[in-house]
Amino acid sequence: MEQIDKNGNLKHLLTLEGLSQTYLNKLMSLTDKFIDKNNRLRHTDDLKDKTVVNVFFEASTRTRTTFEIAAKRLSADVISVNVATAATAKGESLRDTILNLQAMQADLFVCRHGDSGAAHFIAKQVKPGVAVINAGDGCHEHPTQALLDLYTIRHVKKDFSNLTVAIVGDIAHSRVARSEILALKTMGVKHIRLVAPKTLLPAEIESSGVTCYNNMEEGIQGADVIIMLRLQKERMDQGLLPSLREYHHCYGLTAERLKLAKKDAIVMHPGPMDRGVEIDSIVADGPQSMILQQVHFGIAVRMAVMVELTAGK
Amino acid sequence: MEQIDKNGNLKHLLTLEGLSQTYLNKLMSLTDKFIDKNNRLRHTDDLKDKTVVNVFFEASTRTRTTFEIAAKRLSADVISVNVATAATAKGESLRDTILNLQAMQADLFVCRHGDSGAAHFIAKQVKPGVAVINAGDGCHEHPTQALLDLYTIRHVKKDFSNLTVAIVGDIAHSRVARSEILALKTMGVKHIRLVAPKTLLPAEIESSGVTCYNNMEEGIQGADVIIMLRLQKERMDQGLLPSLREYHHCYGLTAERLKLAKKDAIVMHPGPMDRGVEIDSIVADGPQSMILQQVHFGIAVRMAVMVELTAGK
Amino acid sequence: MEQIDKNGNLKHLLTLEGLSQTYLNKLMSLTDKFIDKNNRLRHTDDLKDKTVVNVFFEASTRTRTTFEIAAKRLSADVISVNVATAATAKGESLRDTILNLQAMQADLFVCRHGDSGAAHFIAKQVKPGVAVINAGDGCHEHPTQALLDLYTIRHVKKDFSNLTVAIVGDIAHSRVARSEILALKTMGVKHIRLVAPKTLLPAEIESSGVTCYNNMEEGIQGADVIIMLRLQKERMDQGLLPSLREYHHCYGLTAERLKLAKKDAIVMHPGPMDRGVEIDSIVADGPQSMILQQVHFGIAVRMAVMVELTAGK
Repeated sequence: MEQIDKNGNLKHLLTLEGLSQTYLNKLMSLTDKFIDKNNRLRHTDDLKDKTVVNVFFEASTRTRTTFEIAAKRLSADVISVNVATAATAKGESLRDTILNLQAMQADLFVCRHGDSGAAHFIAKQVKPGVAVINAGDGCHEHPTQALLDLYTIRHVKKDFSNLTVAIVGDIAHSRVARSEILALKTMGVKHIRLVAPKTLLPAEIESSGVTCYNNMEEGIQGADVIIMLRLQKERMDQGLLPSLREYHHCYGLTAERLKLAKKDAIVMHPGPMDRGVEIDSIVADGPQSMILQQVHFGIAVRMAVMVELTAGK
Repeated sequence: MEQIDKNGNLKHLLTLEGLSQTYLNKLMSLTDKFIDKNNRLRHTDDLKDKTVVNVFFEASTRTRTTFEIAAKRLSADVISVNVATAATAKGESLRDTILNLQAMQADLFVCRHGDSGAAHFIAKQVKPGVAVINAGDGCHEHPTQALLDLYTIRHVKKDFSNLTVAIVGDIAHSRVARSEILALKTMGVKHIRLVAPKTLLPAEIESSGVTCYNNMEEGIQGADVIIMLRLQKERMDQGLLPSLREYHHCYGLTAERLKLAKKDAIVMHPGPMDRGVEIDSIVADGPQSMILQQVHFGIAVRMAVMVELTAGK
Repeated sequence: MEQIDKNGNLKHLLTLEGLSQTYLNKLMSLTDKFIDKNNRLRHTDDLKDKTVVNVFFEASTRTRTTFEIAAKRLSADVISVNVATAATAKGESLRDTILNLQAMQADLFVCRHGDSGAAHFIAKQVKPGVAVINAGDGCHEHPTQALLDLYTIRHVKKDFSNLTVAIVGDIAHSRVARSEILALKTMGVKHIRLVAPKTLLPAEIESSGVTCYNNMEEGIQGADVIIMLRLQKERMDQGLLPSLREYHHCYGLTAERLKLAKKDAIVMHPGPMDRGVEIDSIVADGPQSMILQQVHFGIAVRMAVMVELTAGK
């Protein structure tokens, strides 16, 4: 496994595939250290004198900001490079961009790219001791998002084994969903339900041990955790959905529908939310929503991953 | 008053309305601490481990830079988020943006927005202990600009009570003017003159105790302080003014006109200046100009406000 | 010489013209201090409490990033201001931008501008104790690039006096070439060869003691150092070159051609490279290439220059 070295340590965080339950638990325990007893994020010197470079080939103020804040809370020097995808259409140029930044002594790259596999490609270019975090590559993976979701679930539910988790929305195009499913399986979640119209479900996904639902009510019935996904408007243009209104009618998380889940069910969303489309405000802002808690934990999780990847290097 | 807590402490700085003379004097004394005896800005640890987020919904490199420099001089972690107004056309989204940044543990928001009242709206969303500074909201207010102007006037004139202050230009559309008038009144300035063509004066403003002049020569006659405002070119398009040339002819501050003011009168401008329109270069760069001194004091004033809003939180 | 004070110390770095061999050697020795024995860049407090402002009137993520990283490694507060050239078409406005940033207490400006001489203009505006680094002005100079090239050559070749250095490409429009030639001459390089088609060679350059070649093979024959320049695509539009393909055919550095140089010749390029046009990948990534080493040394050289310009001020 290219992201793990001979001693079992993480060199990069590209995917959650291949990470053991023990390792995920270790990352979650490390995350605990960055939150104090008042639920405040700590400020440490763990990355002092290190240089973290955010290389975003795809615009994302939100995700870039979370990594920038996490790195600064660890006292790293942070450089953000917004690269227009156009300028690096050729793989060769992407490689040169990375090699140049590495020559400037970047210790850690945080990469987002529109192409699946870009983070793996970048990890192959860098020299030993330089780490890469995949902050989203095409429709492929977004491992830190899945980790923060795990951390949030663990925070509330303590144990994963008896949970029923429903993931609702555009599964087929979601890198979040892909990483999420991997993570939940690793943690031993027995019942993973994917809830979406057929056009937004990947082909043959059921063979991987999840259950698909095209009916929202059935899908969230008795669930402990409901993870709503963002619906990208371009799915309409592609003809995969008739309209946002129709989507909300069938798959929007309303207060009414939420009652079908367990009483203590929690609601999650990776953000940014499209209120009134995938989720109603009364749910998003309601007592079962963990949405802002996810954002908060997200900083701590990213701090933990950054420390794990750079410690002793 | 929503920006002041029960103990009379400032929670946010949204407006100068309701701030007492004592309080403004306190802020100016606090500002003194950030300038050393060589007139150099200090570098302190007052905001170490705190996160300041600049949320600019309206582009302003200049103002954003002043707050960024002020926060860094206080050793804060600074994140600048440039939000396209388009993306947050709906109030709901603006709220989500703020709640998300708050969840990332922002301690202080510096906000600029094209809509009047946006800073108040944002202040209502944040939880106790998180502060908001209004860095300009529509045509409404720009309190730190007015504070730095006060500080500059006090630096030169020591006492406010016997001053005649003329504010010249687009009063009707200026958030600076609005905050300025509030501040000058609070400090006990007896003679506040607004000098502008009728089309750029707010209706019924005289009832608030200021005197309006449509004639520049009369307006600045014997003044101690002349505050020139920036003229936005869009006022031409709106038909409020015939031409820039005509405006300069009637209201531009020339060396000739400046002689009508007191001999020791000072000239101020919030910047950026449109030389040759509202002010001539010989005046802007002349010995009576305090324009660059304003910029310098502006950093110290912003440092003072940031410390006041976050101290002990 | 406007960039050197009475005591022979550098006030600004605008050009390499007029800097003595002793001085260039001094800068290179200072650079040594920022690289440790493991060839890692150091992190120091040399610019703690100082404010470095990158003012880029011309977009350049790459160069801006190198200065930003260099300044952060010295613990400076760094502000980057991207100014659209349009907004400062008039010299007056450029002056106001600089005077305002200076009033915010910038200690050091790093400037890039599309007009030759812009850095000199800026240096004339700032007050004593404030330094300006020219990070590229039009077709004029780019002194830190030339310095890092010198440093790289010295690192490998130790002595300059017996070297043959070939600079290949768009000499006429290259600020890098201009600074490079000055630097190489000062260091006593006897054989400086400029290799380019006639349309890309400045008129009457040979009178300055360099030798021009229109034939690539002759130009690099027996060279110790080959510096390839970037070819800007706009040269085609201007009719100075027939096509990229034709250019590569005549002036591209291929493995075949490289054999004509000395066996231990090194290949350099200021980046970003257009692989397949001015240089082949097998050469760019080959054992004689110093291209990434240049980038690495570039940070250390910029650290040295920044310290030299601010020390004791």
